[in-house]
Amino acid sequence: MSLTESSAPEIAKSASIASRRLATLSTESRNNALTLLHSALVENREHILEANARDVSLATRAAEDGKLSQSVLKRLDLSRPGKYEDMLDGILSVRDLEDPVGRITMKTLLDDGLVLERVSCPLGVLLIIFEARPEVIANIAALSIKSANAAILKGGKESTESFIAISEVISAALSKTDIPTPAIQLVKTRDAVSSLLAQDGLIDLVIPRGSNELVRHVKDNTKIPVLGHADGLCSAYIHFDADPQVATRVVVDSKTDYPAACNALETLLVHETILETVLPQIAEALLAKGVSLRCDQASKAALTKVLSPEKATLLQESTDKDYDTEFLDLILAVKTVPSQASGLLAVESAIAHINAHSSKHTDVIITASREAAEAFMAGVDSAGVYWNASSRFADGMRYGFGTEVGISTNKIHTRGPVGLEGLTIYKYLIRGEGQTAADYSGQPGGKIWKHEKLPLTS
Amino acid sequence: MSLTESSAPEIAKSASIASRRLATLSTESRNNALTLLHSALVENREHILEANARDVSLATRAAEDGKLSQSVLKRLDLSRPGKYEDMLDGILSVRDLEDPVGRITMKTLLDDGLVLERVSCPLGVLLIIFEARPEVIANIAALSIKSANAAILKGGKESTESFIAISEVISAALSKTDIPTPAIQLVKTRDAVSSLLAQDGLIDLVIPRGSNELVRHVKDNTKIPVLGHADGLCSAYIHFDADPQVATRVVVDSKTDYPAACNALETLLVHETILETVLPQIAEALLAKGVSLRCDQASKAALTKVLSPEKATLLQESTDKDYDTEFLDLILAVKTVPSQASGLLAVESAIAHINAHSSKHTDVIITASREAAEAFMAGVDSAGVYWNASSRFADGMRYGFGTEVGISTNKIHTRGPVGLEGLTIYKYLIRGEGQTAADYSGQPGGKIWKHEKLPLTS
Repeated sequence: MSLTESSAPEIAKSASIASRRLATLSTESRNNALTLLHSALVENREHILEANARDVSLATRAAEDGKLSQSVLKRLDLSRPGKYEDMLDGILSVRDLEDPVGRITMKTLLDDGLVLERVSCPLGVLLIIFEARPEVIANIAALSIKSANAAILKGGKESTESFIAISEVISAALSKTDIPTPAIQLVKTRDAVSSLLAQDGLIDLVIPRGSNELVRHVKDNTKIPVLGHADGLCSAYIHFDADPQVATRVVVDSKTDYPAACNALETLLVHETILETVLPQIAEALLAKGVSLRCDQASKAALTKVLSPEKATLLQESTDKDYDTEFLDLILAVKTVPSQASGLLAVESAIAHINAHSSKHTDVIITASREAAEAFMAGVDSAGVYWNASSRFADGMRYGFGTEVGISTNKIHTRGPVGLEGLTIYKYLIRGEGQTAADYSGQPGGKIWKHEKLPLTS
Repeated sequence: MSLTESSAPEIAKSASIASRRLATLSTESRNNALTLLHSALVENREHILEANARDVSLATRAAEDGKLSQSVLKRLDLSRPGKYEDMLDGILSVRDLEDPVGRITMKTLLDDGLVLERVSCPLGVLLIIFEARPEVIANIAALSIKSANAAILKGGKESTESFIAISEVISAALSKTDIPTPAIQLVKTRDAVSSLLAQDGLIDLVIPRGSNELVRHVKDNTKIPVLGHADGLCSAYIHFDADPQVATRVVVDSKTDYPAACNALETLLVHETILETVLPQIAEALLAKGVSLRCDQASKAALTKVLSPEKATLLQESTDKDYDTEFLDLILAVKTVPSQASGLLAVESAIAHINAHSSKHTDVIITASREAAEAFMAGVDSAGVYWNASSRFADGMRYGFGTEVGISTNKIHTRGPVGLEGLTIYKYLIRGEGQTAADYSGQPGGKIWKHEKLPLTS
């Protein structure tokens, strides 16, 4: 790790060269580095918290002056109970994951003495741009070292003191390991972001961690692939045969478990025939949790008829825009799916709405019918499609990945919760004995391909 | 298939909607469509060749006027022996490949009655921009249908008549299948490329098939991910302990088997201690094949000393630029790797040269040492890294993929020869019974994740 004030091309160049060396280090070397990194952060806890307190104090004044939001202030504070411990635990749990690098995922005997192997390898150089959370620096350093990627980190200005303190500690720790110094670089220079985003020849992936605005800004200003930790406009569709208890449980959890999360529910689609039967109990449960319901005409009319007058007055009318809005708050847009001759046509109409309005993050169907569920899961083009389960399950820890780099709504490379595997790619190795392509040109007497699959062991 | 003159947003929108339907079709439906497509092209052979003859005749005049290269003319001509048959065979061999869609690649029991599955699915909408070869349209239509992706095809103006004829035949054939018409669209409108490249919300991947200039133009003018069928600056490094026969065979094949291919050799790195022993026989073999050698000072001096005077006069002096040039011709840049205290330091110096100058396509080491080979294969950041084998093996058919969409020098998604798998991504499906995230919040009495790997069967 080094704290650098070099120019963007110098930073990217040195990271790229370091990444090649990092890629050749053994699993043990990289795991040892994580152990040392953890110890150093344990030992220097007070020093780091003091630096963090200076950031928090400045930010508190800015918040008092209305120049900074309370949520940024909260994210900045490393002294909140459990936060520092979580950061420390995170490093060890990343260390203890299976090595994502060096896994053989294809092995083919091309011919006798000519073996093709596909082996996972790091991407190369990551650029991580983040906002207030100072613990991200330790988290990302751990993920990068584990996956053998070099990382360039650029933090938000509110956490400058914390970053410097943490990075000095990590730097000192890593200098005692095999990790080359420029493999993890913290960029202090202001306005470095745009020049780093121009280094598409040397940086392989950008990961913006922060607001949707940050993600959009990065996507619009670089030719480097961006791992989008992006919008989440998640929907749930309640089919006519849905179990009312299941529907209520799943919808309430999806909407209210953590409304500010990208996997929270934003749109509820309801089959027309259950507007007066199933929807009212879902609506009552949501209203009881303080959720504002923005309803289309049919659903509002049905609820008004069934709910008590004082509850009915809480209902709002939706506008078209509500079905394209990620509220990130206790607000839910409700839309009626017209009943059709066949049940599957209604499912298709829900699928069409979702494919046109959702952000391809996570969408849910509640139904008792396997046929309807499978049609929905095949037809919805989202990273996660669930049957009778909460959208909040879209999370790397919940999927059992052990860690989460972010959630991707991209269509290529990696989708949904991204674990360490998303920070790797592969290379093809051939080990031969001097074979030439001309040997296999198909001429009479020439050699013939065997193309025999071999077991995936080294 | 439809031949369209709609606007770019309309084309992309209808393709996107069709892609969702295509994604839900069964393997049989898609394979049947390929069978019908094949039959139709068999039946309409004469009609298509007549249209192609009109293109060829126009192009011949353009070539005579010096407005078109002979190689474009040659690529355009579908009546050359075997070309039409190869196109037909290609469709059936794609049909007979394993379905890349619907493969379960991860299955986890999250908890009782709560199963997570990762299943391969199409990317969505492909935009394929190609130059002269008219058979690409049938090839790409087959690959798209097999992988359940919608495709928008834009061909070069030289082959307009062929494209129209082929697309009408394919269109009529597909209208008798389950494939939605807008799933395969041929764009005739001129200047449609730039407006299609702006449809990054609806098009998921662009595949330019043609010259390096075309690929570069596309990459510089879109935010859609580009599958780069790009430059190939391939290098080979001859270590001091290389078997001279192996070195000669591999280098001659890599350079001369098909010099215009992206997997042809462009730079030869030679260990200093074998400049007068192994290099001369490689050089003689290359000179005999008509290869121009652009040598650095040390290699030229050594070869001049050992080779006969008339051969030595053929040697040229290299410039720095030669080591960054993809010649695509019978020209090879030769560079000396200084001998070092340890053999592995020389390997590192070869690795450093390659990582700095190569296009991350395919690079080769010739050595008798497993240690040197493994260091090289770990350190070189290219899609293919070979030990004692020709760079010409970098090819989807040779790798046993059955077909090749292109060769990618990207660092994310897919690298090296790309088969059907490169046209797919995955989605995560959860099948539950109404579970909520709050159930697993870690509170006392709450549910506990099982995260148990399940066998990968449906």
